[in-house]
Amino acid sequence: MSNASFAVGLDYGTQSVRALVVDAQTGEEVGTGIFSYPSGDGGVYVDPEDPDLARQEPQDYLDGLEESVQAALDDAQSHPDFQPDAVAGVGVDTTGSTPLPVDAQGAPLSSHDRFADDLDAKAWLWKDHTAHEEAEEITDTARELRPEYLGKCGGTYSSEWYWSKLLHCRRTAPDVFEAAHTWVEIADWIPAVLTGTDHPDALKRSVCAAGHKAMYNEEWGGYPDEDFLSALDEGLAGVRRTLPDTTYDASEPAGTLTDPWADRLGLPVGIPVAVGAFDAHLGGVGAGIETNTLVKIIGTSTCDLMIAPTDQDLPDIPGLCGIVPGSVLPDHYGLEAGQSAVGDIFNWFVSVIKPDGMSHEKLTEGARALTPGESGLLGLDWYNGNRTVLVDQRLTGALLGMTLHTTPEEVYRALIESTAFGARVIKERYEKYGIEVDRIVNCGGIPFRNDLVMQIYADVMGQPMHVSRSEQTPALGAAVAGTVVAGENEGGHPDFDHAIDAMTDTREEVYEPDPAHQEVYDRLFALYRRVHDAFGVKGTEDDLYDVMKTLLTIRDEVTN
Amino acid sequence: MSNASFAVGLDYGTQSVRALVVDAQTGEEVGTGIFSYPSGDGGVYVDPEDPDLARQEPQDYLDGLEESVQAALDDAQSHPDFQPDAVAGVGVDTTGSTPLPVDAQGAPLSSHDRFADDLDAKAWLWKDHTAHEEAEEITDTARELRPEYLGKCGGTYSSEWYWSKLLHCRRTAPDVFEAAHTWVEIADWIPAVLTGTDHPDALKRSVCAAGHKAMYNEEWGGYPDEDFLSALDEGLAGVRRTLPDTTYDASEPAGTLTDPWADRLGLPVGIPVAVGAFDAHLGGVGAGIETNTLVKIIGTSTCDLMIAPTDQDLPDIPGLCGIVPGSVLPDHYGLEAGQSAVGDIFNWFVSVIKPDGMSHEKLTEGARALTPGESGLLGLDWYNGNRTVLVDQRLTGALLGMTLHTTPEEVYRALIESTAFGARVIKERYEKYGIEVDRIVNCGGIPFRNDLVMQIYADVMGQPMHVSRSEQTPALGAAVAGTVVAGENEGGHPDFDHAIDAMTDTREEVYEPDPAHQEVYDRLFALYRRVHDAFGVKGTEDDLYDVMKTLLTIRDEVTN
Repeated sequence: MSNASFAVGLDYGTQSVRALVVDAQTGEEVGTGIFSYPSGDGGVYVDPEDPDLARQEPQDYLDGLEESVQAALDDAQSHPDFQPDAVAGVGVDTTGSTPLPVDAQGAPLSSHDRFADDLDAKAWLWKDHTAHEEAEEITDTARELRPEYLGKCGGTYSSEWYWSKLLHCRRTAPDVFEAAHTWVEIADWIPAVLTGTDHPDALKRSVCAAGHKAMYNEEWGGYPDEDFLSALDEGLAGVRRTLPDTTYDASEPAGTLTDPWADRLGLPVGIPVAVGAFDAHLGGVGAGIETNTLVKIIGTSTCDLMIAPTDQDLPDIPGLCGIVPGSVLPDHYGLEAGQSAVGDIFNWFVSVIKPDGMSHEKLTEGARALTPGESGLLGLDWYNGNRTVLVDQRLTGALLGMTLHTTPEEVYRALIESTAFGARVIKERYEKYGIEVDRIVNCGGIPFRNDLVMQIYADVMGQPMHVSRSEQTPALGAAVAGTVVAGENEGGHPDFDHAIDAMTDTREEVYEPDPAHQEVYDRLFALYRRVHDAFGVKGTEDDLYDVMKTLLTIRDEVTN
Repeated sequence: MSNASFAVGLDYGTQSVRALVVDAQTGEEVGTGIFSYPSGDGGVYVDPEDPDLARQEPQDYLDGLEESVQAALDDAQSHPDFQPDAVAGVGVDTTGSTPLPVDAQGAPLSSHDRFADDLDAKAWLWKDHTAHEEAEEITDTARELRPEYLGKCGGTYSSEWYWSKLLHCRRTAPDVFEAAHTWVEIADWIPAVLTGTDHPDALKRSVCAAGHKAMYNEEWGGYPDEDFLSALDEGLAGVRRTLPDTTYDASEPAGTLTDPWADRLGLPVGIPVAVGAFDAHLGGVGAGIETNTLVKIIGTSTCDLMIAPTDQDLPDIPGLCGIVPGSVLPDHYGLEAGQSAVGDIFNWFVSVIKPDGMSHEKLTEGARALTPGESGLLGLDWYNGNRTVLVDQRLTGALLGMTLHTTPEEVYRALIESTAFGARVIKERYEKYGIEVDRIVNCGGIPFRNDLVMQIYADVMGQPMHVSRSEQTPALGAAVAGTVVAGENEGGHPDFDHAIDAMTDTREEVYEPDPAHQEVYDRLFALYRRVHDAFGVKGTEDDLYDVMKTLLTIRDEVTN
């Protein structure tokens, strides 16, 4: 019998959950299982009347837990050294902020008959933007009463985040809000369910979710204070009283796997399950994040993650989604930036506009044949708002420069380029505040699927693009957390540093910038910057800051 | 035998020539024939390396003359009162400025073996934009030396116009320029060929073409003076010496039909052929133009035509394409404005982008189901530059407001709306300079094919949209000119007023503005205006005036 040990990483994405069985010594991925959420439209409840709404079915998460882990274990059986008993720990990452209203016992409200069909009682998916007015209100109130809260979340509180969603529920679905004892991020809920710690009093909440999305920071004593929340709504202060004083990073076990779940999953009873974190943050771990390395997780949207030692001074960085100690690795600030849509934009063009019925592959081939600048096009990548550096959901996409000769391939390339320019804005924001970017590692779905995107990113950013060895860095990062909570004595690792060294790497192939392309893209980026600022930044007398917002206001008025 | 008399109107469009046989008393269209130019791409020579280039084959015009007239006469045979001998006159309209280099005998250079395959020796189609640098140079030189020249053409001389094209030929194809004795607008060339007056010394040139495109005005003694042209290039001064002192409106016969052409066409020998004019101007006649009526000819591009009595003071109106006495009707200024692309934009979306393989009809049905403002989209209709009021070919299209939910139908409607906003800018420019628009009559292809476009125009402009009875107003207007040169005694009319009264009308169906839509569109138009000015108007410190131009400059650099 082999001495090999393994960990299971669970990655809860927007449309499916993936379970990954990983060799704890080598990082080899020996088994994988995927479960697509059956509810709604591709796993997401949408509302034809309200494009801002996006909810998910909590039961899908539980069904997916069982099916994905079983499938991954089955898949791993073909590996000579694998056996289920050799799984030493479990880690979990999820989307977020995706809060779920639960009752006093910790059960989702959606499991009550009364709320079975009520979308407001489901999980409020990260990309739900119904709370944009509440986000503005929270930002305004914090600016007045608690400016320090904004300093850690980029200066603007987002409609995607915890308190915005709760406040919107309070205002628009008071019955659900009243029935909820508290709201739990699914990153906290899944490990709690697995370890039987889902009672609100027992639940260990993640510093990653709390710090990045719920204004939690030890500097001011944890979650926002009741006075501040009362100024917004008394109901929020009530939720505050259900929240703990302490939160945890993923090196902490949420608990140990219960008998019933061990049985359902086919895993050993009592193995530790790490406290959850967001997919991006554990994705950074799976990509081998270290100081001065920017990890870009590029999928439907992006997360642009960096870390910085907590023993070094760090200024607040406006526009970043968050600066949270421990959210990625212990003893480091986790710095989170991101683009609200990247792959989603390319998918929109292929699947909604459907130009000439062309596939991603065919459009990519056509776009590859073009020279930078040849199309005369320039786009703004704000099809789902702007997360960094403008932190503004009331921004929308734009494309400039069309002529009667503009082809679908040119538009497709311009869409890619617009996301590359958006990525460069983020990189330059890090650098402007003293976080040097010496190395860029890409992961997520797109870097493995589209080499043209990677080459354009190298040309636009003027730096080599590395790609992580693993195609499943969030699940791998979750498994890494599983090995850390297992500990060295149980076949895991003493800490994240050792685990990352052993289990992660980048590919040999690197995308190097082409100097001629770089020169053209520098000029195009200068134009992007100006259009970006004209539509995105308030202040100048002739700005177009309110144009996209007014279009959305008119849209909302005429459709309501 | 009937006493009915008829006229033939010839309408030379961008892709085909149409001959129309019209009852001179009633305006009834009794026969029609169409000939599609066989050369190039849909009748237009294009250059894959240079999207600005658009040329045409002169021989196509002559082949089309014979085939279209014969087909129209055949078609008319089924009318009980028609016989070819009853045709009393011929009128001709063409695209323009579409100048053609000819030799000392008036033969097109393209008929010489040496130039048979040389695109620079063909007709330079109106939408050829290769001369944009020369247009700027002419504008700058005129601003310095002859500001009065610019006052009559909107303040900017266009790359589409006569002298720009000649100067570009001089600079880039000197062999063609040297070999040309003079350059003839095809509006002048066709009547001259029919009447045997195509020798440069005999040719009667049209005040419409000369005044709108070649800086001809009696105020300064006709065509621009040699000193001015020499300041641009000595070669232009040489062409100037081939040009006459006098030009003519369409009430003047170019001559009478020659024996050979009467024979080839099957028309009576010796009937008068009117001096030519542009399609838009005779289209205005065919739509029944009168003072304070705006005639909108909406096809691939538009012409927005008005007239004003010459015995009344008229200021120069910046941004108009031209203000030319006699170009539409004798004793009236012809005022020309227009949009460089309208139907072409819709066609681009359907034929080049091909969204989901949908037709105009299907997209129109989807777009009809939308409420104004619902899409959150706003476009700039500059896919082929901006003719009025910015007079700038170095502007390009734009679309703002896309989200991941934006549908092809929403884009299609936004494209229509953007052209409606562009149309409103033109109407407001007329009104700002004291030309009241009491009535709007639409003609051209689109008003008959797409009622949604007409309704949106009514809603955006806040005025009823009338539609001309005839679907072929340029050809009808040309036939009206044919009845005027025929004269009352030969079954025609004593003047244009009588002819227009007898032969033209609008349809009973009128598109009335919807007040609720109007209110939304007023708000969207305010946004359009701001984006229009930000990208289109030089001057403010934070403008984006150079963005589209720089994109085109980069495009030109990287593709050359």
